[in-house]
Amino acid sequence: MSAKFDLTFVQGLTVQEKAELVSGKNFWFTAENKDKQIPKMMMTDGPSGLRKQASSADALGLNQSVEAVCFPSSALTASSFDVEMLYQLGKNLGTAARAENVSVLLGPGVNMKRSPLAGRNFEYFSEDPYLAGELASAYVNGVQSEGVGVSVKHFAANNRENQRFTSSSNMDERTLREIYLTAFEKIVKQAQPATLMCSYNSINGTLNSQNYRLLTQILRNEWGFEGLVMSDWGAVADNIAALKAGLDLEMPGNGDYSVNRLVAAVHDGELEEAKLDTAALRVLRMVEKFHINAKKADKYDKAQQHVFAKQAAEDSMVLLKNDTAVLPLDANDAVAVIGELAEKPRYQGGGSSHVNAYKLTTPLSVAQSSDYDVTYAQGYTLTDSAVNTQLADQAIELAKQADKVVVFAGVPEQLESEGFDKESMDLPENQNNLIQQMTKVNKHVIVVLQNGSAVTMPWRDNVQAILETYLAGEAVGEATWSVLTGEANPSGKLAETFPEKIEDTPAFGTFNASPEAENYHEGIYVGYRYYDMKHKQVNFPFGHGLSYTTFEYSDLKITTENDRVNVTVKVTNTGAAAGKETVQVYVQNQASSVETPVQELKGFKKVALEPKESQLVTLNLNRRSFAWYDTANANWRVDNGHYCIQVGASSRDIRLSQVIDVKLGTDKPTTISEDTYLNQVIGRDDLKPALKQSGLDVVLDNVASGSDSELLANMPLRAIVMLGTSIDQMHQFLALANK
Amino acid sequence: MSAKFDLTFVQGLTVQEKAELVSGKNFWFTAENKDKQIPKMMMTDGPSGLRKQASSADALGLNQSVEAVCFPSSALTASSFDVEMLYQLGKNLGTAARAENVSVLLGPGVNMKRSPLAGRNFEYFSEDPYLAGELASAYVNGVQSEGVGVSVKHFAANNRENQRFTSSSNMDERTLREIYLTAFEKIVKQAQPATLMCSYNSINGTLNSQNYRLLTQILRNEWGFEGLVMSDWGAVADNIAALKAGLDLEMPGNGDYSVNRLVAAVHDGELEEAKLDTAALRVLRMVEKFHINAKKADKYDKAQQHVFAKQAAEDSMVLLKNDTAVLPLDANDAVAVIGELAEKPRYQGGGSSHVNAYKLTTPLSVAQSSDYDVTYAQGYTLTDSAVNTQLADQAIELAKQADKVVVFAGVPEQLESEGFDKESMDLPENQNNLIQQMTKVNKHVIVVLQNGSAVTMPWRDNVQAILETYLAGEAVGEATWSVLTGEANPSGKLAETFPEKIEDTPAFGTFNASPEAENYHEGIYVGYRYYDMKHKQVNFPFGHGLSYTTFEYSDLKITTENDRVNVTVKVTNTGAAAGKETVQVYVQNQASSVETPVQELKGFKKVALEPKESQLVTLNLNRRSFAWYDTANANWRVDNGHYCIQVGASSRDIRLSQVIDVKLGTDKPTTISEDTYLNQVIGRDDLKPALKQSGLDVVLDNVASGSDSELLANMPLRAIVMLGTSIDQMHQFLALANK
Repeated sequence: MSAKFDLTFVQGLTVQEKAELVSGKNFWFTAENKDKQIPKMMMTDGPSGLRKQASSADALGLNQSVEAVCFPSSALTASSFDVEMLYQLGKNLGTAARAENVSVLLGPGVNMKRSPLAGRNFEYFSEDPYLAGELASAYVNGVQSEGVGVSVKHFAANNRENQRFTSSSNMDERTLREIYLTAFEKIVKQAQPATLMCSYNSINGTLNSQNYRLLTQILRNEWGFEGLVMSDWGAVADNIAALKAGLDLEMPGNGDYSVNRLVAAVHDGELEEAKLDTAALRVLRMVEKFHINAKKADKYDKAQQHVFAKQAAEDSMVLLKNDTAVLPLDANDAVAVIGELAEKPRYQGGGSSHVNAYKLTTPLSVAQSSDYDVTYAQGYTLTDSAVNTQLADQAIELAKQADKVVVFAGVPEQLESEGFDKESMDLPENQNNLIQQMTKVNKHVIVVLQNGSAVTMPWRDNVQAILETYLAGEAVGEATWSVLTGEANPSGKLAETFPEKIEDTPAFGTFNASPEAENYHEGIYVGYRYYDMKHKQVNFPFGHGLSYTTFEYSDLKITTENDRVNVTVKVTNTGAAAGKETVQVYVQNQASSVETPVQELKGFKKVALEPKESQLVTLNLNRRSFAWYDTANANWRVDNGHYCIQVGASSRDIRLSQVIDVKLGTDKPTTISEDTYLNQVIGRDDLKPALKQSGLDVVLDNVASGSDSELLANMPLRAIVMLGTSIDQMHQFLALANK
Repeated sequence: MSAKFDLTFVQGLTVQEKAELVSGKNFWFTAENKDKQIPKMMMTDGPSGLRKQASSADALGLNQSVEAVCFPSSALTASSFDVEMLYQLGKNLGTAARAENVSVLLGPGVNMKRSPLAGRNFEYFSEDPYLAGELASAYVNGVQSEGVGVSVKHFAANNRENQRFTSSSNMDERTLREIYLTAFEKIVKQAQPATLMCSYNSINGTLNSQNYRLLTQILRNEWGFEGLVMSDWGAVADNIAALKAGLDLEMPGNGDYSVNRLVAAVHDGELEEAKLDTAALRVLRMVEKFHINAKKADKYDKAQQHVFAKQAAEDSMVLLKNDTAVLPLDANDAVAVIGELAEKPRYQGGGSSHVNAYKLTTPLSVAQSSDYDVTYAQGYTLTDSAVNTQLADQAIELAKQADKVVVFAGVPEQLESEGFDKESMDLPENQNNLIQQMTKVNKHVIVVLQNGSAVTMPWRDNVQAILETYLAGEAVGEATWSVLTGEANPSGKLAETFPEKIEDTPAFGTFNASPEAENYHEGIYVGYRYYDMKHKQVNFPFGHGLSYTTFEYSDLKITTENDRVNVTVKVTNTGAAAGKETVQVYVQNQASSVETPVQELKGFKKVALEPKESQLVTLNLNRRSFAWYDTANANWRVDNGHYCIQVGASSRDIRLSQVIDVKLGTDKPTTISEDTYLNQVIGRDDLKPALKQSGLDVVLDNVASGSDSELLANMPLRAIVMLGTSIDQMHQFLALANK
């Protein structure tokens, strides 16, 4: 039994009590107040599995937590492009949290993958805000359907780990809105998450935890967020300023220090008590909803969750390359499994997402317990990047004798974790070297990758197949083997571009260049938006992923009803195996006079198809699918005109496209002004009388017919004196033209 | 005899008379007022030769002008890296102007070459603001030493032609200051030009002609500019707003329209009369100094100026490549001269810089009148880019029989001019094709280029030599032949990078992407600053240029005295020919915590050396050589610390370097704050007692010795509660540490 937590209740608390509520009790709990019947409430890390610390707590994953199923990290689950799977993942996490009396799960992380070197990419979904927002919304809805809250993080523009507490992410407003806030906006509007976690960094010089514009004006006033904003652990520099800006809960607790400051600030008149009331009430409502009124803790079946972890991984792994159908492995193949990662897989990220896994299955153990003829050599060591000739030679010997070679390669944990950025997107030298060696002695080399973010592949053209498994969770062994052998047909698509080299990436040269500030020079051109714009060859494009079957696209049909554009396409499984395909819709803006990306993902749908089966897939585009953020007018603007709707199997494998005329927004101004360029005047029949009457026709005809007609495109009416006409004639023309 | 033009005089004029003064009389003249003894004064286009129009006037070079010597365009003269030559060029132009009763020469243009597609690059000096500023200052001093004024243009950030009247150049303040204003600032401070010409475009949304911050706050208040600001022809949209912002003279005249508006504005109280007085006085002072008090017109010797035009071109042409010393041509060589550009050279730019040349010499005529065995084939047509098989075959036949083939190639005038931007940096297909054909039938192919801006070179590796002659002026024939034959030893260095392809250039993908705005995403990374940062291979780097002799660099010595750093290096001519070398000094900032370019040109000097001769070259660096523009504090900031001084023959041919400790500016803050990262605390012996006393030492030692030591670099003191210490301990440490 507890009190009813409303404003009256809050106003009945002392300033001290309220200040205690908005400051964490300690590492994982909100404040407890037995007198007022306010229980403490637990939060726990774990976007890909609970990290509930039983004893000594820390924010860095240093200490042990209770056993839980370790699901694939978001880098992998995002590759599923499967909102239903993400919803189920959320449900599984919610069930586990409830069973462990955890009320709020600290995740998911939905920051954009701006550089492959960003240390925390493995926890994030995508380089594309639409995709990240859709997938994370499903995840959030899944968790919250179990009565457990989430904390969507890290709000916002937290795209590097180095100096993450103080670095300022500097960018223009359009970039902020279109790239770095969109996923959060989508989740707030589609899933109303219990909480958002504000990130460590600043945006354009203002610390996020003290950023009124971000935490109040945009988040609450514009988007209508109804939940609570908590700080990332240690993100608060000045808790009074933070509360004023819209932060409700400082985490972790800071002992008496923070509480005393707030109490003094209220007493000194520096802080309005009503502000404190608002934040305290939000904390109480969260406690009420997700702790006091939560469904009772159930037992939960970890074995069953482990099976889900396997299926989620299978549904997400990305078959990047598969020449001569070297995969799936044939039952008669003698397979050499090479690489220490087969035996000691990297299956989860380090830091706050680190889980004490319930049951790890390694690729090697699964392979060895299968019916296949499997041999194994370690090949390299994970602790060192130097070539170990003895280990390599053993691997070479095995590879010579095998029908096929499966090399497990990836980024060792010490090179990639929360807390610091990567220094290279290359695999360790010993691994790259080993793969090259393998290709010299065996034609059928298959590389299985375990990594948190895009890596380079100097051996790309020499191997026959590449399977990207990212950090696949505790069922990594079963899922990988299942895909390799064809028991599962891979259907993952890349949620990030794999560029050829670090020099090709959007932020190369300025990423981490300054400890003080990260300047987002590339603006809205992140991920494929950048590679498309710069005409870069990439190793594998955004949205790419192969299957053991093939799909054909046909019958594109686009219809418009009210404020929706419906894109329908028929997808047919033209191969021999059942499989899943993700249909992707990209929109190319040909209407706007601002710079826009070559194309942007605005819809996707995953369908399962039996051999020869066809399905009509419909994707709905709305006004926002055509919008860009107009900073001058502070709104999302749509320009009427032509847009090319591109339907494909990846961002660079467009199968069907059609240009449509969109009428959801604003027409181009038709008024002729002094700034109208001459070529926009000359072509128009309706303006000919006005040109003639004002006498401008003669001089314009002269110039248009001359060799300098290029000039007309770049001379506005107000400069027409340059051609020898008078300014009065120009004014006369304007008056006539706009009559 | 005229009146004394002072403020009293101005105040004696009517508002109407004053308004007439600040509006041009017509195309090329300031207002005349016979009653008040104010004569009209003439201005004329012509940064590389007078374009004095005798009869009907226009701003686009459409109509004929009086005969004048056509000097090389700035793209070529900049490649001289020779301030003395630029001064002499200025003197020649001043002499010609004086002889023609021209009082102000409309030039030079010192905008930055941001994209190779910018239509007006040929008129500009460089991609580097230091180089452009130094060379243009010498040019301005040269012109003005003859009592003729200049108008330095186009102020500022006018880096594209398309929609140039309305497009906004959007960039951050640091970029504006370090890249786009620096050359103007340097010229204002080093040469006090008579006038500046404000450009058509806007900067960050404010039209330059109405930009108070640009025309008054920065130009006059900060830099101390004492001259007059005129508009580019037709750049004024609202002449009242322009006058208020600091524009003194609207050009060209707009008839009564502009005058009446000003008169009405004064009478309505919309415009302070004192503002009008100031502008009118500046016009009168210009008329007084450069017209009334000008030295009397001399006759001038065009034949002598033609000789100077030849020398200037020889001194500037850039030998980009010269394998197996194929150049200079040997007197016994049978030389096939190929390409219509040999016969109809492109020797000057189109638009306002177009000159009615005094005496054009073509490369073909000079070659044919030499002692060499010369044959000629047209090879291609300039009017068309399609391959003409007949012309090509004739050229192939000649090439087969020749010892060496000299192909003249370049960008036809219709593809490159003021008024529109280029659509490609490729040569026409027929020319590229012809060059490739030549290399198949003759091993000794030499390409001579005539173009306004960097071009691609698909045949780069197949030809033996490349001579870049840009737009070389009317003596193009003599100068080119003189360099080809070794009569002149080439000594030009590229003032712009030649990238491999357009996709590699800084603004690729967004240049001209929007008719409304040009977003300067690359910021300060223009030209080599970009290619260096992005680790791009280039065809030929900034500062590159070969000679028929070789130079050795030695004995680097760096000394500091007061606020100067003196860099001395010994340069020795180690070859057999007399020649000139340009020593370049690049500074690499290793001290600042903001992002900075890999290196920046901060000094250069050209020296002439006989074979075996050595010379000590000293270059002086000053505080500004180490400065970056600190927007937050609105000043040029120097950070004390390490800078690498790099001395080389090009930006990518650094011969000697030395790291020095600069003490001209600000020390890094030594105060320990809550934002100080732990790794900056742990290493310092002097802080150990404070760490021990506050008890932080234990926890820090634990973490530092653990596997997560990377985290220390990214955790500030205020987040130390994450490691389990109390915030009070942290405060105690801060107090002790800063005592």
